[in-house]
Amino acid sequence: MDTVVLAGYLAGTLTTISFVPQVIRTWKLKEAKDFSLAMLLLFAAGMILWTAYGIWIISLPIIAANTITLGLVMILLWMKIKYQ
Amino acid sequence: MDTVVLAGYLAGTLTTISFVPQVIRTWKLKEAKDFSLAMLLLFAAGMILWTAYGIWIISLPIIAANTITLGLVMILLWMKIKYQ
Repeated sequence: MDTVVLAGYLAGTLTTISFVPQVIRTWKLKEAKDFSLAMLLLFAAGMILWTAYGIWIISLPIIAANTITLGLVMILLWMKIKYQ
Repeated sequence: MDTVVLAGYLAGTLTTISFVPQVIRTWKLKEAKDFSLAMLLLFAAGMILWTAYGIWIISLPIIAANTITLGLVMILLWMKIKYQ
């Protein structure tokens, strides 16, 4: 694997795993009122498009990172709706 | 501009503008306790690396989207620290 792809994977890993402490915190607090619903919806829509873009330009880091992030954002979105 | 680049820009626009309603909401509520500090720090670090990756693979949508998003995330990070 070359350096560029590795940097892409590292970038993807960071932005993706960043949602893990967030999901844990929201789960523990049972509260997500500080989150903007518009933000979560727009972000999820963006993740779907980023994945499509990644498939188009054949960038595995983009595909992998955005698919997993989408899953975590969907969990946050579900908690935002559930806890309000 | 071809369709692929356009899709990339649209994806970038969505994920980037998603932070605008969030910054407005946090600014109005003067509260960001539901946010995980680890999330914001990891996400910001990821944005820096994504920008580097975008420069490497010469993808303008990735460079533009991540630079602006980084700015908005830094504002959120500042409010998270300020309001706690």
